[in-house]
Amino acid sequence: MSEVRRDIVTDTWVIVQTSSAGMPDDSPRPPRRPPDCPFCQGNEAMTPPEVSAVRAAGTTTDGPGWRVRVVPDKQPVLRIEGALDRVGVGIHDMVTGVGANEVIIESPDHETNFAALSEEQIRLVLDTWQRRLVDLYRDSRFRYVLVFKDHGRMAGGSTIEHVHSQIIALPATPRRVKDQLDGARAYYEYKERCIFCDILQDELDSGQRVLLATDRFVVFAPYASRLPFELRVKPRRHCHSFGDATADELADLSPVLKRTVGALHSALGDPAFNVVLQTAPNLLPQDGYWETIGRDYHWFLEIIPRVRRTDGFEWGSGFFINPVAPELAVARLKEEL
Amino acid sequence: MSEVRRDIVTDTWVIVQTSSAGMPDDSPRPPRRPPDCPFCQGNEAMTPPEVSAVRAAGTTTDGPGWRVRVVPDKQPVLRIEGALDRVGVGIHDMVTGVGANEVIIESPDHETNFAALSEEQIRLVLDTWQRRLVDLYRDSRFRYVLVFKDHGRMAGGSTIEHVHSQIIALPATPRRVKDQLDGARAYYEYKERCIFCDILQDELDSGQRVLLATDRFVVFAPYASRLPFELRVKPRRHCHSFGDATADELADLSPVLKRTVGALHSALGDPAFNVVLQTAPNLLPQDGYWETIGRDYHWFLEIIPRVRRTDGFEWGSGFFINPVAPELAVARLKEEL
Repeated sequence: MSEVRRDIVTDTWVIVQTSSAGMPDDSPRPPRRPPDCPFCQGNEAMTPPEVSAVRAAGTTTDGPGWRVRVVPDKQPVLRIEGALDRVGVGIHDMVTGVGANEVIIESPDHETNFAALSEEQIRLVLDTWQRRLVDLYRDSRFRYVLVFKDHGRMAGGSTIEHVHSQIIALPATPRRVKDQLDGARAYYEYKERCIFCDILQDELDSGQRVLLATDRFVVFAPYASRLPFELRVKPRRHCHSFGDATADELADLSPVLKRTVGALHSALGDPAFNVVLQTAPNLLPQDGYWETIGRDYHWFLEIIPRVRRTDGFEWGSGFFINPVAPELAVARLKEEL
Repeated sequence: MSEVRRDIVTDTWVIVQTSSAGMPDDSPRPPRRPPDCPFCQGNEAMTPPEVSAVRAAGTTTDGPGWRVRVVPDKQPVLRIEGALDRVGVGIHDMVTGVGANEVIIESPDHETNFAALSEEQIRLVLDTWQRRLVDLYRDSRFRYVLVFKDHGRMAGGSTIEHVHSQIIALPATPRRVKDQLDGARAYYEYKERCIFCDILQDELDSGQRVLLATDRFVVFAPYASRLPFELRVKPRRHCHSFGDATADELADLSPVLKRTVGALHSALGDPAFNVVLQTAPNLLPQDGYWETIGRDYHWFLEIIPRVRRTDGFEWGSGFFINPVAPELAVARLKEEL
């Protein structure tokens, strides 16, 4: 059981697992390798029944023959059934713990390095992300769908090393997304231009922080990178939702991601990292952002290597110290492209 | 050299060390123990010259005979000299890296457990925090002073285990502080009451998340705790600045902190944790918050055990998953009081 609770001062949301008694067991456990890896082809019975898959013709659900497979998380933090209710608890607010937790198994083989997947395989993963996003956004209880990947223990990765990503459909819009929407709207109202398009142009003009640029995407280290070697992958075409990315864009994004993650892998020695999709929330006409979202927002991917720990300074303030200037990080990564 | 850069979309600030070439060395190093600990009495020459100290009469600066000692950080991320300039860089903003980094050595003896310090010693530490905050706020270039403690490697602690805390004086107000000020002001304008006073009363009424309460302080786990066993220590008296805490309050806070950190230490087996002081920024009359800060804000301490890693979900969204309900965390900690 879980509740989605709101911090009334900062409008931050937390999924609180109310049934859990005591501490999570965070002690190191051995990784699950073949033949015991539940994500390997042939071990389909070790996961919950699949939600979706990219499969060869003639193969059957929950059998072998797939290339990308989507299954519910075995230990979901949110449950898929139930109404979305907003409830007052004393002075506080909460939303019932409705949502979805899915795992995208990115290869039938026991591969642990995302950059080692073929371009075609990565494109199938991107297609799957998009398909699941669009499908989950049909359910208006889900206000935001977060697509992300945790690689390595420092990045929150589990004992399953087999390449995979995750999807969490949330019953409330995360604070960081709202902060972006507010910033983007204020900028548009002042400049009558998309802030993300302007940042992209500024990066291309200065060139100092651009790792690579294709006809459709630009990979750069943000000017105010919070963590060393943080990168953003932005489509050149203004578009608020990853759900509306074109087939041509996804086909171009695949080698871009492979090269970028490959450069990080080589430069930093298989670092832990997160990949996070930043896309528009699932708005209803009564939501404040509904009318201007297509104008204000611009989807992108964040790639965040986790090579240092955060300290109390950062947790307490939201003010970060980054010991590696993004310009230097990009110069280092370019050597590995 | 460093620059303080602003993320123009989310108004988040980052201190970027522009001179650093390549990766920080984050590999484990052995802790520095006597006789090589620079924070032990007798080793005063191993630190930069002291800024301030609580000393026995007749002892001399940078010699033994002190009880609490404040020294500049040996590797400061901000420099104390220079004007505060706000500069446009392409589309972005930055502020010159002006600020102060100080270390508060909390005991002359090689003690590593804060809860093992005497109540009187902890009171001297609190007095020192207050004195440094008030002194640094006399400098209007410093817009926020963050007082914090990193205990243990998971919490960003250094190889120096000797009990100490840190102070960073910043040239810009952190985002999380602004979020609190905005939330508190909106609440006051609607309710004509302090949101923090109301939360305190709600916690006392429900009682489920209160660890301990004295005449002057209440320790509780916040309703929307982001991390397991997160605690807040709030003064009952409405007051926006730790600089205005009374001597009676600091005398009461000392045993409250000792008991609270002691309970965490026993319940979780010497966990890594952060302590962060949340107090009002150093406002100028032209700042937006100047007129109402005394009404809207209410200082407190956050204690954040770092018993689990954060993953891409949390970094990407600012939406947290907490596997231990705060009510259960408090019940567990009460067993150790």
